[in-house]
Order: sequence, then C-alpha cells, then structure tokens
Amino acid sequence: MTPERLVVIGGDAAGMSAASQARKRRDADSLQVVAFERGHATSYSACGIPYWISGVVAGEKDLIARSPQQHRANGIDVRTRTEVVAIDLAARTVRARDLDRGREYDEPFDQLVYAAGSVPMRPAVPGIDAAGVHGVQTLDDGAALRAELEDDRVRRVVIVGGGYIGLEIAEACKVRGLDVAVVDRSPTPIGTIDPDIGAVIADAIRGLGIELVLGEAVIEIETGQDGRAVAVRTDADRRLPADTVVLGLGVRPDVALAAQAGIPLGTSGGIAVDAQMRTHVEGVWAAGDCVESVHRLSGQRVVVALGTHANKQGRVAGINIGGGYATFAGVIGTAVTKVCDLEAARTGLSEAEADSAGLRFVRATVDSTTRAGYFPGAQPIKIKMLAEKRTGRLLGGQIVGREGAAKRIDVLATAIWNEMSVDELLGLDLSYAPPFAPVWDPVLVAARKAFEAVEAEMGSAP
Amino acid sequence: MTPERLVVIGGDAAGMSAASQARKRRDADSLQVVAFERGHATSYSACGIPYWISGVVAGEKDLIARSPQQHRANGIDVRTRTEVVAIDLAARTVRARDLDRGREYDEPFDQLVYAAGSVPMRPAVPGIDAAGVHGVQTLDDGAALRAELEDDRVRRVVIVGGGYIGLEIAEACKVRGLDVAVVDRSPTPIGTIDPDIGAVIADAIRGLGIELVLGEAVIEIETGQDGRAVAVRTDADRRLPADTVVLGLGVRPDVALAAQAGIPLGTSGGIAVDAQMRTHVEGVWAAGDCVESVHRLSGQRVVVALGTHANKQGRVAGINIGGGYATFAGVIGTAVTKVCDLEAARTGLSEAEADSAGLRFVRATVDSTTRAGYFPGAQPIKIKMLAEKRTGRLLGGQIVGREGAAKRIDVLATAIWNEMSVDELLGLDLSYAPPFAPVWDPVLVAARKAFEAVEAEMGSAP
Repeated sequence: MTPERLVVIGGDAAGMSAASQARKRRDADSLQVVAFERGHATSYSACGIPYWISGVVAGEKDLIARSPQQHRANGIDVRTRTEVVAIDLAARTVRARDLDRGREYDEPFDQLVYAAGSVPMRPAVPGIDAAGVHGVQTLDDGAALRAELEDDRVRRVVIVGGGYIGLEIAEACKVRGLDVAVVDRSPTPIGTIDPDIGAVIADAIRGLGIELVLGEAVIEIETGQDGRAVAVRTDADRRLPADTVVLGLGVRPDVALAAQAGIPLGTSGGIAVDAQMRTHVEGVWAAGDCVESVHRLSGQRVVVALGTHANKQGRVAGINIGGGYATFAGVIGTAVTKVCDLEAARTGLSEAEADSAGLRFVRATVDSTTRAGYFPGAQPIKIKMLAEKRTGRLLGGQIVGREGAAKRIDVLATAIWNEMSVDELLGLDLSYAPPFAPVWDPVLVAARKAFEAVEAEMGSAP
Repeated sequence: MTPERLVVIGGDAAGMSAASQARKRRDADSLQVVAFERGHATSYSACGIPYWISGVVAGEKDLIARSPQQHRANGIDVRTRTEVVAIDLAARTVRARDLDRGREYDEPFDQLVYAAGSVPMRPAVPGIDAAGVHGVQTLDDGAALRAELEDDRVRRVVIVGGGYIGLEIAEACKVRGLDVAVVDRSPTPIGTIDPDIGAVIADAIRGLGIELVLGEAVIEIETGQDGRAVAVRTDADRRLPADTVVLGLGVRPDVALAAQAGIPLGTSGGIAVDAQMRTHVEGVWAAGDCVESVHRLSGQRVVVALGTHANKQGRVAGINIGGGYATFAGVIGTAVTKVCDLEAARTGLSEAEADSAGLRFVRATVDSTTRAGYFPGAQPIKIKMLAEKRTGRLLGGQIVGREGAAKRIDVLATAIWNEMSVDELLGLDLSYAPPFAPVWDPVLVAARKAFEAVEAEMGSAP
C-alpha cells in the first residue's frame, strides 16, 4: 500500500507540532511527512527574540526547541529555505520554491497542514521600508536587529507600537544601555488592557526611563541622505530622532496562499477551522497564528497569535491526522509580559471587548501584596476584575505589579474557563504561607470586592 | 428594644472575622459584640511565627493584623487575657476568667461564636514538659522560643515533627546559624505529600544542611540535672543532643469546652457545622481550626487548621449573624511551604487519601522549569498529578521546586475545585512569556502526561 503523504506549510510551532504528532502515531509505511519552511530554522521561540536582542539569552540556538536535523532524525522530511508559493486543491499539490537554488517544483499531498503563521503589521507611511527600520517577527529579523544594535553608532531606538512586543523590545534596548522611545496611537500601552490599568503600566514604564509617546500616530519615517531612517514623525508634529526604528505593531494572519487556493476564511480574517483544526476543505488542516479561534466568553471568532495556542493547535491537528482524537477548546485571551521588573497580565475580556460582546459588567480593582505584607520581598500587586451583572460570572482580569504578581493571572484564567462567578471564586482553596501570599490572597480580595460590586448593583437595579 | 448580644470565644482569625462582619452589618442598637481572648493579642498571623523567630520579620507587631485597640475602636468589646472556662447552653451564658485579676464572671449571650482554635499535639513521652521544650502555636509561644534562641548557649535545636511547621522552624533556626535536626516517625517529611515527592523534599532539606531523621519515633526527651531538655531519644536507639527542643507535630481542634457544653462534634473530632457555619445548637456558630469541613473531593469531613479557612469561615459566620447570607464551600487540602529556597505545595488528595476515599487513580510526574528553559533564572519544578481512572478527573497535585514553582498549585486547586479532567486541563489558556513559563507551562505538561496515563489505563482495562 502506498503511504499517504502529509505536507506541512510552515516549520514553526504549529506546523512542526502537527508533523511530530502525526509522525509519532503513524509509521513511514502509513504516512510520509514533508514540511516546508521559508527560513532556515524550525520550532523556534519567536517570543524569546526580545531576550536574545537584550543579550540575556546568549545565542540563537537557545531559542530553537528542535532543529531541522532533529526533526529529520524523527522521520520528518523538513525542507528549509523553501517557500510554498501556491496550493492547488484540485490537483492536490503545492508549488515549492527552493530559495537558495531558485528552482520550483510541485509536491503532491493527501493531507495538508496550513501553518503559515502571521505577517507583521506595517503602517503605510513614507520611509517604512528604509534601512534601519526593523521587524522582530522571525529569527532572521532578530539577527538583523541584533547585528545593527551592536554598532556603536546606534544610541537611540524608537519603537513603533506599545503592545507586548513593543514593550519587550523597549526593555531589551534599555538593557543594552540605549536611549529608548515608544510611540503608540492609543492613550495607554497594551491595547487589550483597560486604560485605567494601562495608565499604571504607562507610569511604571516611564519610571524605568523609557520615553513613552501615547495618543500619537506615526505619519512618517524620516530618512537621511543615505536613505537610512533618522527620525519618526507623528501626527502631533512631534519628531523623535532615531538611529534605529523597530516595528512592534503586532501581526495579522498570513492567509494569502490559503485564500488564493480557496480555503475559506472566517469572519475574523483568519482561516476557519473546526474543533479538530479541520478547514472547510477535505484533508486540509490549519493551525497557529493564521487560524481563528472561538473566544469562550464572547462566543466570537478571534485571531490570537501566541505560541501556546500554536503548539496546542498543531498538536490537535497532528493527533487527528495520526488517527487519534483531540480538539482545541478555544481561547480566553490570556497574556502576560514583563518589562524590567514590571509585570502585567490579562485574561478574559477587557471592558471594550465585553461591551462589544454585549456583556454588561461591574468592575473592582484592589491593591495588595504578593507575599504577606510583613514578609521581606512583598511586592505590590493590583488586580482588576470584571464580573457580569446579575450572574457575577467573572468576565475578565488584569494584573499589574512587581515580581510574583503576574502569574496569578492563571488562577483567573482557570476560573473564567470554568465560568465561575466571583462569589464562587471567593471560596477557592488557594495556597497560603507568608512567603507566597497574604492570608487573603490578592485574587480572593479582588473577588470579594467584585462580588460586593455585583451585590450593590443588584440592590440598585430598577 | 434591647440589642442582641453576640459572644465570641477566641480572638484570632476566625473569631475576629466573625465579630467584624457581624459588627459591620448591624449597629450597636441591634447587636452588642463581646470577644474573649486568652492571650494578649488578637487577629495575628500564627503562620508568620517561624519568620519572626528567624528574624526576617522584625517584630511581633508585624504579625498582628488588627490589635484589640483597633477592634475596640470598631465597636467590638474585646477582652484579652480572659479565658472562657465554661459554656451554659441552657442559661445562655459563658463563664469567663480574667487571667490577670483572677476573677470569674458570667457573660450572657443570644448568639455564640465558638472559635477556640486548636491545641498542639504533644507526645506522651517522658520529659515532654521539661524546660527547653517549646511549642510554636501562639505569639506567646513564639516570644518564648525567640528569647531562648537569643541565648548564646543554644547551639543545637531538635525539632520533633517534619510537617510544614516543623520544617519552617528548621529553616528559621538555620537562618539563625544554629545546628538543626528534625525527627519524624514517617519515612518522608510532610505526611500529606506522597512518599515519592516527599523523598525529593527530604533530599533537598538535607542539601540545606539540616539533619533529617526519618522513620523514627521520639520516645523520650532526656533532661539534665537542672531539669532542662538535653537530648531527644528515638525508638531506633538514637540520641539527638539538643539545647532546645521544638514541638512541631501539628494540632488538633480545641473542642473541650464545646464538648462539655453539649455542642455536637462531627466524625472527624471537629465541631460539626453546616454550610453557614451553624452548629447543631440554635444560635451557636463555630469557625476556624476547631471545626470540621467538607472535603470536596472525598466527601469526607476533615479538620484542616489553616488561617485561610479560619478567615473565610469567620467571615461567613459573621455575615450570617449580621443578617446576610454566605456559605463556606469546603476545602480541597491546598497547602504550601518554603524551606530556604525549596518550595513545596499540594492540593486535593494524596495517594493514601484517594485510596481511603475509595477513588482509583493513575499518576504522572514531570520535570520542567519555572521559566523558558533558555531564560536566566529558570528554576526546576516537579509536578505530580493524580487523575481518576476512567473519568480523568484531577484528584490531586503536588509540586516541589525552587523559586516560582509552588504558587502554581493554585491553578491545580482551581481546576480541582471545578472538577476538571486532566484532558480539559490540557486545553487551559494559561499565560505564557519566556520570563514566566516554557511555552508548554509545566502544569500543562503534567496534565498531558496524566491524560496519557488515563488513556493507557483504559486501553489496558479488562
């Protein structure tokens, strides 16, 4: 019997997780696995790039979980530096281009995993393609930026975008001893965090010596006579001198090939998939940054580009291709970041997201400490909760603080996942000892205050 | 109208939380609140005593959340150094003894909160009452031990009991530069942690330079000519020289007065209460270390002496007395401790507890890191999970590791609280960034392995 042929487009987390799981479950007589990757690395941590740039992570290879050689040793035919340029669903082939040799060829498939990832947002402003303007999405981007920052002439970096990646790059440049400015069109950093908590983050970031320009949109990257970027101009007539500009504006799903081939997209612009990560085309799967997921709270379809989801989704697709059964249960928007000693995290819905999902809520914010107040090393932690009116269901949580603060978001994420009300949350048997928490863990204090807000609102309801 | 009179027995977490909540909800015209406390402090952190002994917490007053004066300012008639010696349910009075003045008097009540706490276990061996043998349950105990350890002649401390408190006191003595030995009759420390994980903890504790004598029972505290303790003898013919002996054997509920008065106890030996913290006697409530709680997994009644429960139970009783409605939702046995840089935590059922509850399980243990493996400061973390056979329901979790490891137990506790299966757990949207976790959080890695164990066991089932 001829083995089935699985082709994987994209050699990072989602694609290689799918390939590995399928490979593990079916032997070479049953399944051949070919994976195409445009770059030269596979299965790497894009989230680790800022730490490689700062130098706290020593080498590129530290960021690579599994190299092409390792995948090949496991029986996966990995073809790096090879870009898939077209998919023919009728012929069941992909058109591959060997970037180094310049030749193109058709590769047949029975099953296809589309895991092309995402493409960085680039504002359509003059100068955006100038030398000295860097993205930070791939390892190759990271290498280029790192090389440039090693040039002593680079003293001042302007980062366009004040989201997670923008702030992490800001820290990296700060750690390298550079002057850093971050510019974002929103009034507070990290758009998925509410403005009141965002304002606390903004203050803390300025306290770290990072210049933060908020509420201003970039309208031009000014270039010098040599064509290199020399400044960033905003719509408030501000000119931010820059030796290097970094784009940290987030990403959008890379669906170009899929759309051309006729693989249906969803309402959010990501590839539409079911719980098993099947697209609407028989034998075609998709996973990672390019797909849309169900948000468990809003019920809406969303695209969340995050390594955790990519790994899980790839695993799910691979298990199913391998003959097993697994499903991806959706997302609730959990995220965390660290900028120097500032920690920030969020899960569930922000106020704006709850509004747009039609969910009404009350809010509560509390200040506490990460350890018992009297215990050395106790750090500040601020927790905000949104609870649905009437039901008290926890809809969202946001945390900002110092060491030991942010990872507590996982308790809120687990509570939201289980549709707990803040009243139920208040009963949780969370761990306590003075080095780890006050006797009322900050999470419980926040739940108590949110519960009181739910009760107060019911008392005052018409 | 004459106000109702609420009498509270016990001025620590449970009693004063009840008093405060009732006070907050009803004014002095409706409710008078009298609280009796045998010691001189109220609302203090007994869990903080080891850190006061070690010196990392500077003063006794740091451990006091709210003093008698503060409670009085809130309208609670706190009577310290006053012991309740009898309860007359028919006459609705308690008999109070003023310990400093030596006089006794009857105090009438309409509502009674019994929050007498616990009494430390003391083995019935010769020498147990000798000078130089210390308990560590109350602030007064702590003060006495602290004073003794400040004597330069004390070089070597033997701690009887290798549970949480015993190990925390061992650390405290180590921090003070003393020679420390811990003796426990069990084969591994912390009896509520499985022996396989306990063995890891034992190795780590020995690595800290603490002598750990396991599997041996204390049969005598040897005393010198002056009547002071000089050594601890075990049933293995071992003699551990000691300048000071500390008893850290845990506690049992202090139910003597309640039992004498006819307030019914439960099967576990703690006072029987319902969800509102009502005893079986009309108008009599109980809360804290002296009551029994429902274990949500086993369905059994258990006594868990822990500040978190005491605070919650006291709050619940006080809200109900105050005319509101609140319930205590039970416990699942979450606990955490830190010994130098070793962190250990547990939640749910241990293997022995699951066995005795009639629950069959599979187990999985994984080793991972607290941060991305390549990230500086990544520390080891070992997680063990028990999952119910067939259903895959998470029954228990145990964690041992270094900084950043133990507080992850709260995710498992929240999962257990919601009766999640390890398969469901695997889908959880937990936070990820390299400074906080590997892309597969250790909790998810453990859940994946536990799920594989559940599946394997089903495959092999007859």
